[in-house]
Amino acid sequence: MTKQILDPWGSINVKDYNLAMKQFGISDLGNLHKNLPLKHHYFSRGIIFGHKDFNKITESIKNKKPFVMITGLMPSGILHIGHKIVVDTIIHLQKLGAECYITVADIEAYLTRNISREQARKTAIDQYLTNYIALGLKKKKTKFYFQSKGSTEYNNLSKYVAKKTTFNELKSIYGDLTPQKITSAFTQVADILHPQLKENGGPKPVVVPVGLDQLPHINLARDIASRFKELKLIQPSALFNKLLPGLKGGKMSSSDPISHIALTDPPKTVENKIRKYAFSGGKETLKEHREKGGNPDIDISYQWLTYFEESDEKLKKIHDDYKSGKLLTSELKQILIDKLNKFLKNHQKNREKAKKQVSKFLN
Amino acid sequence: MTKQILDPWGSINVKDYNLAMKQFGISDLGNLHKNLPLKHHYFSRGIIFGHKDFNKITESIKNKKPFVMITGLMPSGILHIGHKIVVDTIIHLQKLGAECYITVADIEAYLTRNISREQARKTAIDQYLTNYIALGLKKKKTKFYFQSKGSTEYNNLSKYVAKKTTFNELKSIYGDLTPQKITSAFTQVADILHPQLKENGGPKPVVVPVGLDQLPHINLARDIASRFKELKLIQPSALFNKLLPGLKGGKMSSSDPISHIALTDPPKTVENKIRKYAFSGGKETLKEHREKGGNPDIDISYQWLTYFEESDEKLKKIHDDYKSGKLLTSELKQILIDKLNKFLKNHQKNREKAKKQVSKFLN
Repeated sequence: MTKQILDPWGSINVKDYNLAMKQFGISDLGNLHKNLPLKHHYFSRGIIFGHKDFNKITESIKNKKPFVMITGLMPSGILHIGHKIVVDTIIHLQKLGAECYITVADIEAYLTRNISREQARKTAIDQYLTNYIALGLKKKKTKFYFQSKGSTEYNNLSKYVAKKTTFNELKSIYGDLTPQKITSAFTQVADILHPQLKENGGPKPVVVPVGLDQLPHINLARDIASRFKELKLIQPSALFNKLLPGLKGGKMSSSDPISHIALTDPPKTVENKIRKYAFSGGKETLKEHREKGGNPDIDISYQWLTYFEESDEKLKKIHDDYKSGKLLTSELKQILIDKLNKFLKNHQKNREKAKKQVSKFLN
Repeated sequence: MTKQILDPWGSINVKDYNLAMKQFGISDLGNLHKNLPLKHHYFSRGIIFGHKDFNKITESIKNKKPFVMITGLMPSGILHIGHKIVVDTIIHLQKLGAECYITVADIEAYLTRNISREQARKTAIDQYLTNYIALGLKKKKTKFYFQSKGSTEYNNLSKYVAKKTTFNELKSIYGDLTPQKITSAFTQVADILHPQLKENGGPKPVVVPVGLDQLPHINLARDIASRFKELKLIQPSALFNKLLPGLKGGKMSSSDPISHIALTDPPKTVENKIRKYAFSGGKETLKEHREKGGNPDIDISYQWLTYFEESDEKLKKIHDDYKSGKLLTSELKQILIDKLNKFLKNHQKNREKAKKQVSKFLN
């Protein structure tokens, strides 16, 4: 088995999460989430499928000890429905007691995507922060910061990191290296580790909810944490979620509008996109579908509903009816359209309210 | 001709400065210094032998326009007599009107020499700053700063640098790379370029007085400056001085006490070191020396006097008398001993006064 290299700056399309877990040393979430005081279907349905050291966090929650959730956002383009998974996870962790650090990766955006700081700021606020608030993020215990506005010790940490790794390690983690990638990686490692600096209250458990594509940064941050004897850092934990597949199947992408639903898409657009592009697991003819049933495992509308339909009961009925042929593709699509448009209508209202709260998050 | 790679973190022993100038694209200083309103024998004797774009600085001086001198210090070990050459140059440039930036490379010291920030701070103040003041550095228009205490925009610049270079360029400049070297280099480039940031008054000529070993950083900073179209930076200038040779010949080193005279050495130590170790260009017997004369070109005591004896007339007489055999090695050494001990006695007194001024330079 040749080692697969994950490129956090490239694209990823994971076909087999079980294989990926083995390959990248990610632990199965198992029963770890079962004793949490709040439930979420992302956990129970294996959408959050794996972790590293998440037991440090469940222990903190159990013992009412402080812990941190940190997440980074790349301020490019629009926020789409796929991003919602991480945001929901962030907000769930906040409800579970996490102090939340939200990093705008504007240094990385400049280095790897040539996005100016001004543009990054605008996108981070209009697209990301506003939507995060609309989705339920609370100001209390939340630090929303820009990489380009980090503290002196945060900046120093992003340089000290260089002492705790080697070129060979960086190459084995990231594959091809460029100066931009190295500086971006060191900045991300500083992001993940700096909540444990003295100025932020010292060592404590930290969890990073991420897609698998961000694993390289997690691994590097964990290895470096263990080598920073002088800072007594706790190795950060991670939660890995399955990426929402694109409408047509394959990867969902910000730059490909027909692969996603944007959080600002109007109802008619949502309906058209799903009707026209959502990859179907239904049969070719009505007759064949009624006889043999559809395949929910490959049907994107059904796959999306596993993320967005909170009720296990309803979801099971949809699954069984589709599989038996009772539910047609057009009907399944309508369920998804209704579900999403109901959410989006509500979300648009929340967005308007959220706009008034944005300034509270910015200092 | 294979390209020689200068290692700013290693050692260097330049045998032929003319060859080095050709090889590294350094211009002969020529008459560029002749119209300066203040003279210095380092210029007239070719101790400052070469430059890049120093005409930008002479123009600024001529037109009474602002310009900056920036220099970095590695806060390791003691300050020795070889360091004095750069300090004298700094102070000369200050007298010529430069705004002076003095960088304590404590990030680099940690990354490349494992020196803690606390130790770096102590050394920078006790050894460097105190001696700089004793040698004549004035507070007015001087910014003495630590890399670890740099402003946010300075830190951002040290990261943005990554976008303006490539691995191949870094390899061709520095040879073998390590993450530490890359981060150190980017930090040094930010040091050299940040006096031109908006927060520091915007683009202006900047000169860096250095030994040849620091050329790689100069070249990288100049190339990157020219690529930062958005910042409209002026390519920094540089002055290159010949390194004072070690007492025994070869390289002078902080870590080898018999290669140098420390600025804290007592008179007896100075006398002993020079008598015992200073490489002599004299003949083996008194008789032979009187007949054939000594060789000032290889005699370290004479070489040192070209740096420390300000009077051209006195220096010429010493040269001619030694060459003719009139002046014996022991007499030549005595001239150097007297010269240095007179300077050091005065310097020690100035050091005591300087200690009281140190706090003015620290904020």
